[in-house]
Amino acid sequence: MPDLLLLNGPNLNRLGHREPDVYGSRTLAEIEAACRDHAKSRGTDFDCVQSNHEGVLIDTLHQAEGRYKGIAFNAGALTHTSVALRDAIGSINVPVVEVHLSNIHAREPFRHQSMIAPVTIGQIAGFGELSYILAIDALLSFVEKS
Amino acid sequence: MPDLLLLNGPNLNRLGHREPDVYGSRTLAEIEAACRDHAKSRGTDFDCVQSNHEGVLIDTLHQAEGRYKGIAFNAGALTHTSVALRDAIGSINVPVVEVHLSNIHAREPFRHQSMIAPVTIGQIAGFGELSYILAIDALLSFVEKS
Amino acid sequence: MPDLLLLNGPNLNRLGHREPDVYGSRTLAEIEAACRDHAKSRGTDFDCVQSNHEGVLIDTLHQAEGRYKGIAFNAGALTHTSVALRDAIGSINVPVVEVHLSNIHAREPFRHQSMIAPVTIGQIAGFGELSYILAIDALLSFVEKS
Amino acid sequence: MPDLLLLNGPNLNRLGHREPDVYGSRTLAEIEAACRDHAKSRGTDFDCVQSNHEGVLIDTLHQAEGRYKGIAFNAGALTHTSVALRDAIGSINVPVVEVHLSNIHAREPFRHQSMIAPVTIGQIAGFGELSYILAIDALLSFVEKS
Amino acid sequence: MPDLLLLNGPNLNRLGHREPDVYGSRTLAEIEAACRDHAKSRGTDFDCVQSNHEGVLIDTLHQAEGRYKGIAFNAGALTHTSVALRDAIGSINVPVVEVHLSNIHAREPFRHQSMIAPVTIGQIAGFGELSYILAIDALLSFVEKS
Amino acid sequence: MPDLLLLNGPNLNRLGHREPDVYGSRTLAEIEAACRDHAKSRGTDFDCVQSNHEGVLIDTLHQAEGRYKGIAFNAGALTHTSVALRDAIGSINVPVVEVHLSNIHAREPFRHQSMIAPVTIGQIAGFGELSYILAIDALLSFVEKS
Amino acid sequence: MPDLLLLNGPNLNRLGHREPDVYGSRTLAEIEAACRDHAKSRGTDFDCVQSNHEGVLIDTLHQAEGRYKGIAFNAGALTHTSVALRDAIGSINVPVVEVHLSNIHAREPFRHQSMIAPVTIGQIAGFGELSYILAIDALLSFVEKS
Amino acid sequence: MPDLLLLNGPNLNRLGHREPDVYGSRTLAEIEAACRDHAKSRGTDFDCVQSNHEGVLIDTLHQAEGRYKGIAFNAGALTHTSVALRDAIGSINVPVVEVHLSNIHAREPFRHQSMIAPVTIGQIAGFGELSYILAIDALLSFVEKS
Amino acid sequence: MPDLLLLNGPNLNRLGHREPDVYGSRTLAEIEAACRDHAKSRGTDFDCVQSNHEGVLIDTLHQAEGRYKGIAFNAGALTHTSVALRDAIGSINVPVVEVHLSNIHAREPFRHQSMIAPVTIGQIAGFGELSYILAIDALLSFVEKS
Amino acid sequence: MPDLLLLNGPNLNRLGHREPDVYGSRTLAEIEAACRDHAKSRGTDFDCVQSNHEGVLIDTLHQAEGRYKGIAFNAGALTHTSVALRDAIGSINVPVVEVHLSNIHAREPFRHQSMIAPVTIGQIAGFGELSYILAIDALLSFVEKS
Amino acid sequence: MPDLLLLNGPNLNRLGHREPDVYGSRTLAEIEAACRDHAKSRGTDFDCVQSNHEGVLIDTLHQAEGRYKGIAFNAGALTHTSVALRDAIGSINVPVVEVHLSNIHAREPFRHQSMIAPVTIGQIAGFGELSYILAIDALLSFVEKS
Amino acid sequence: MPDLLLLNGPNLNRLGHREPDVYGSRTLAEIEAACRDHAKSRGTDFDCVQSNHEGVLIDTLHQAEGRYKGIAFNAGALTHTSVALRDAIGSINVPVVEVHLSNIHAREPFRHQSMIAPVTIGQIAGFGELSYILAIDALLSFVEKS
Repeated sequence: MPDLLLLNGPNLNRLGHREPDVYGSRTLAEIEAACRDHAKSRGTDFDCVQSNHEGVLIDTLHQAEGRYKGIAFNAGALTHTSVALRDAIGSINVPVVEVHLSNIHAREPFRHQSMIAPVTIGQIAGFGELSYILAIDALLSFVEKS
Repeated sequence: MPDLLLLNGPNLNRLGHREPDVYGSRTLAEIEAACRDHAKSRGTDFDCVQSNHEGVLIDTLHQAEGRYKGIAFNAGALTHTSVALRDAIGSINVPVVEVHLSNIHAREPFRHQSMIAPVTIGQIAGFGELSYILAIDALLSFVEKS
Repeated sequence: MPDLLLLNGPNLNRLGHREPDVYGSRTLAEIEAACRDHAKSRGTDFDCVQSNHEGVLIDTLHQAEGRYKGIAFNAGALTHTSVALRDAIGSINVPVVEVHLSNIHAREPFRHQSMIAPVTIGQIAGFGELSYILAIDALLSFVEKS
Repeated sequence: MPDLLLLNGPNLNRLGHREPDVYGSRTLAEIEAACRDHAKSRGTDFDCVQSNHEGVLIDTLHQAEGRYKGIAFNAGALTHTSVALRDAIGSINVPVVEVHLSNIHAREPFRHQSMIAPVTIGQIAGFGELSYILAIDALLSFVEKS
Repeated sequence: MPDLLLLNGPNLNRLGHREPDVYGSRTLAEIEAACRDHAKSRGTDFDCVQSNHEGVLIDTLHQAEGRYKGIAFNAGALTHTSVALRDAIGSINVPVVEVHLSNIHAREPFRHQSMIAPVTIGQIAGFGELSYILAIDALLSFVEKS
Repeated sequence: MPDLLLLNGPNLNRLGHREPDVYGSRTLAEIEAACRDHAKSRGTDFDCVQSNHEGVLIDTLHQAEGRYKGIAFNAGALTHTSVALRDAIGSINVPVVEVHLSNIHAREPFRHQSMIAPVTIGQIAGFGELSYILAIDALLSFVEKS
Repeated sequence: MPDLLLLNGPNLNRLGHREPDVYGSRTLAEIEAACRDHAKSRGTDFDCVQSNHEGVLIDTLHQAEGRYKGIAFNAGALTHTSVALRDAIGSINVPVVEVHLSNIHAREPFRHQSMIAPVTIGQIAGFGELSYILAIDALLSFVEKS
Repeated sequence: MPDLLLLNGPNLNRLGHREPDVYGSRTLAEIEAACRDHAKSRGTDFDCVQSNHEGVLIDTLHQAEGRYKGIAFNAGALTHTSVALRDAIGSINVPVVEVHLSNIHAREPFRHQSMIAPVTIGQIAGFGELSYILAIDALLSFVEKS
Repeated sequence: MPDLLLLNGPNLNRLGHREPDVYGSRTLAEIEAACRDHAKSRGTDFDCVQSNHEGVLIDTLHQAEGRYKGIAFNAGALTHTSVALRDAIGSINVPVVEVHLSNIHAREPFRHQSMIAPVTIGQIAGFGELSYILAIDALLSFVEKS
Repeated sequence: MPDLLLLNGPNLNRLGHREPDVYGSRTLAEIEAACRDHAKSRGTDFDCVQSNHEGVLIDTLHQAEGRYKGIAFNAGALTHTSVALRDAIGSINVPVVEVHLSNIHAREPFRHQSMIAPVTIGQIAGFGELSYILAIDALLSFVEKS
Repeated sequence: MPDLLLLNGPNLNRLGHREPDVYGSRTLAEIEAACRDHAKSRGTDFDCVQSNHEGVLIDTLHQAEGRYKGIAFNAGALTHTSVALRDAIGSINVPVVEVHLSNIHAREPFRHQSMIAPVTIGQIAGFGELSYILAIDALLSFVEKS
Repeated sequence: MPDLLLLNGPNLNRLGHREPDVYGSRTLAEIEAACRDHAKSRGTDFDCVQSNHEGVLIDTLHQAEGRYKGIAFNAGALTHTSVALRDAIGSINVPVVEVHLSNIHAREPFRHQSMIAPVTIGQIAGFGELSYILAIDALLSFVEKS
């Protein structure tokens, strides 16, 4: 079973189609493939889940306990509003790294706040698909140290 | 295939049952029927989707790309809180008109703000079921002009 | 005597000249003519008043009582600041529909708030000159129902 | 020439017609007549000006200098928003008493603030037409003491 | 038994000694005497209570029910903070007029808000001891009309 | 000596007289009697203190240490403003349950905040006199578990 | 068919696993069993629904109309953000009691606000699993009185 | 025809009479004369308009298009509140320099904000009548460069 | 008669019993004794008053006029909310030093604000019982200099 | 020794290189040279200091006392945040004019506030390098009048 | 080597010259001399550092570790804005007492907040140069107790 | 010459000594050494600058233009307050990655805001010294792509 989970929230299935000047021109599948190459080069692999449903994201986080050593999580727009996702992360013992394609701190003010940050290890934002690769590196280092 | 999509968010399936002094006494099915008569008189038709699930609304918006020429969208209570719906509309190339049965600007302060307004063409609020008919007219005019 | 009043506030006499990317390239006279055609096709007509003076707008609203069955009112910039216009509408028994050419909810934050909304039937914003035609339709339907 | 000026702002010409549960059922003329009786019983009289135009109110305040010993001023809705009226009062040497028919502090929050209060002697609010009579008494006492 | 109650809150026993440029140079006893002369000239009289204890003021308000036809109440500094006094006034069926010696709306921002205003008839502020006399007149008129 | 203390703050002595649509038509004595019946059925009893004086409430809380096993406390309007009551509860080792007759979270915004909540076990609000009975049950369960 | 519905929102399926110092060490199933014993001792029973999906909670509330006499609802993290749940409760004629295991008013500020409180009977917060039992008692009393 | 317009808003006709410690002791006519001398020394001249009526100021701005090469505008108290003046300036193609006699940023907080600043070239505040002369210099330089 | 007054507000009678990690383990009597030793070493003495009643504190402040040369005042929780204490200090001509055992600026935000600071000489906070001794030194120096 | 000081804060050494659409394409040296020409034409000269160090700017302001008759000061980004610069200006007896190349009131909200404005004579903003020349003129006039 | 460090921030080198009504007429050197006399009478001495450069203050704090037993720190205007100074204090194991000459809580609102208070022992404000002497006493007592 | 610059702001020279539970136990030199190993493994190197002086950081950023291909910048506490650093980054054409050792979004609210984020590529926060290594990777990828 893969060590990691790559979890993506609402609208990230639209990558490649959605505002390419903000989010880049690659699809989520292409980004996942690039991440998989990188993960394999570091001797690991990951599962991928994307959902536009907050409830599915919560269910997936719950089921991650005991299955994965770490989660790279781009909660998309729910980052800024969802107390339920924050509590879902707080209810499991799996380290989570917060990922954003765009630099959320350089966009509209309501995107500067992360409701989930207080229950994650750290945040990587603004590097496009590289954000995911950096998050995988961060998770692997964190897991090794723990 | 119909040209338009009539998309309704949470609790609008309760129309006719729910606070009739605020929302009127007609059911959603009756309103849709009246709208269909109006649409047909203008030579067009529409599909109807109602869901209480934000995720279903996002999925539906994504699937609208390439299928509909325009969407009349009453996001209900999610209007005021959902960044995810805003990003969903922003991720497709289909014009959206924001519809509200009640005059949201005359109600509680938290209903004055629309998170989705910045990614829609315009807003029609306060005219009961007529709001939908005006929205259909607005969409048809917008589509003709484009 | 016409059934309706089309009332326009400050700077709307500059339509066609003023920021055409925001407000379109047609003059107020051209828009009024298009509205008149539409009104006549529905068997009615309207008077037009435009003023840059808040006081004149208040006087006009007061004089509307007993003369018109409804008012389509674009208060322009005064929408966002004038308690006096709100009270003027509240002091007469003529239904008022709030009209905006641009989608005020998609512009600067100070344009998101309408001081007059709580005393109007509803709001139509963002459809350019079509906003006025939709407002006429809304008023006629409202008057018929009352 | 009368000693005092009774100055009324926007919509107060609608008294008797406008929301009688808030403002009472007497017209402005009837209230002025009752005030005049009271003033005469105290050996004085007053001029009356009412305008819906902020500019006319400012002009009237300017012209009051050297003509009146005091002004009872109900600025209506402009009370809450007009810095210009505040500066107009500040630019003359005539004492002003702020009058309100309704208890503005018991209504919507935006009516709790008075922009003109810092440049008036005091405020009388909530007593219907009696507010004007009390204001006349207050002005006469103030003038006698000065 | 007197018809009215003159109720004064914290620090008003310091009148004459306390910041005379704000509150005048007369003691509370002198002001009460002047008020009594005025009340007698209108055929009535009043009891006087002053306390620096919020609890005593609440007790006094409760005991006023069935004893007085009206209360002129200067709650002093408690005006701006005491929900308990607001509820005490709301729990009795005796009309209350809010009185202030100074023009609270022209002082520090925290003195602009009155917690008790929503449960009083009206407010008189800024006229020094005359504020009390105007309040007596207002109460007598209110009682006569009721 | 009774196990519990039923402590009531300002204006609760007006129950039955005060705004019955908000607080019900029963007097405090009647409510205390009903609570006593319930307490006795569970094999315990309580003392009752009501005061309109914050200082008396603080003194009573201090004296509760070593005398009672728990306190059901309706601080009335002081709930929303009194840091002193919060510190009084924090200064004793007796568990406190916060009680409200009305649903404070459904009323004016200033009643939504409880200054004392952070030092109590929990809050019961909105059930009329039943709120007290539920609070007694909650205290007895808490005491049994401790 | 049971009289009551016990409805639980996101992350409450994690009870027993999730932050036991905040939420206790018992699972939701154990708590429901304890509640059932209590309900049966009072001659009633209830159905249980838990979901991490806001949409499922809304659907369940809609379907409660005509099926249950009352609902004990712990909306979890959605308590603080969901206008849609508030409108769902407002759209049915079934009394709802708001339940929280922890004392939300003693935690982070964003947990102090309840979006659903204005449409519920009352709130019980902070007593762990006892909160549910108290809510059942409150509902039964409310239903008996109605 | 003069090249420039010197436009003054409410209460500036009171210069010389109004709070001389804030605004200086010279009348508007004296200031205009001093400015004219300066303008002539630079080979140009200007028209002067002062009005206490927002509507007149808007009309004057509209009529400036095609007549003047630049406007020095002291909007007085309307600077801080008038969206309508901001839109009027935005609706014409004539450069505007914002002028203030006093240093508005050193006065009450509500005078720190300028609603018109975003549509002007720049702001000169605090130099008394010299502010106007500097504004004329600024306009002439701006016009030369354009 | 002693020169100074040591005045303590609500809950300070609980010192030694109350949260010793915040307030230390010594009783108020022990602290007063230590202060007395210090005062005597500087050739002076003081009276002590402690009350949980705001009204008693106000009365005591009023009576201090003409009796004491200075007051060291720890208003406890009332520091942050009481406008009445602020006005009481403002109504007497006795210098007051504000004292706090804990560093209020390092605690909850609502403890950072002092309503009484603007009418005191200065503030000493955070040094436990030494705060009182420093306050005595400060008062004696102030009195000597005056 | 020159009469004036031209003081520039952080990043102004980057003029000509830095965002030329906001700040123009001329270097600081070029602007100083143009200013010097202008100053000489008016019979005066100035020293120039630029520093990216707040401390150096404070030291320079202190040393200006007794050396210069006036200072034209562009504090750059420190304008909006530095209480220390405000106090430095307040600690010397040399008049300061606040200068900005760009119209700070038309940019991001955090640039609208000037911490130093309350201790300067006035502000000139938005005219590019001309802002400096106007500031020199303003200083010379101010010095002549003093 | 002296036991203590007396550290002064920006503009305190201007003491004696700067706003003497706020800060007194003595120079920093004179105050330091008076403090030294006091320190010597208590058998200790101190070093003095004053700088207008935040960076120098940070460097000095870092170097204090292992050299001094305590620091009396008047950060001047940086008190209210500098997170960097707060972190510098937090990064060393030397106790710091916060000192202010003026009563910062009685001045402009932006001076009421201290960014460094949460990492200091306590605060002494408002006693002029005596503030420093009290701070030395406080430090010596703290050091003796530790 | 190295390709990159590792720039550290105030207090980061205290790493290893300062709050090790927040910032870890390694010194800045140790972290730089670890980063250098990593950089060399990727065929590059970097210069290191650390300063507690905002001015030095600004100077260093200015001098980076034309010297480095990218900057990894941990501005420490200045992140949250310094507009000057934001403008310094905006004035150069070198890509900057924002680095934080701790997860600033999980700490005090004033650390959630980054003034420099809008002018950087992206932000990496919360991974201890790994944050720097990830930043180097991010910069190298960014430079390769550009």
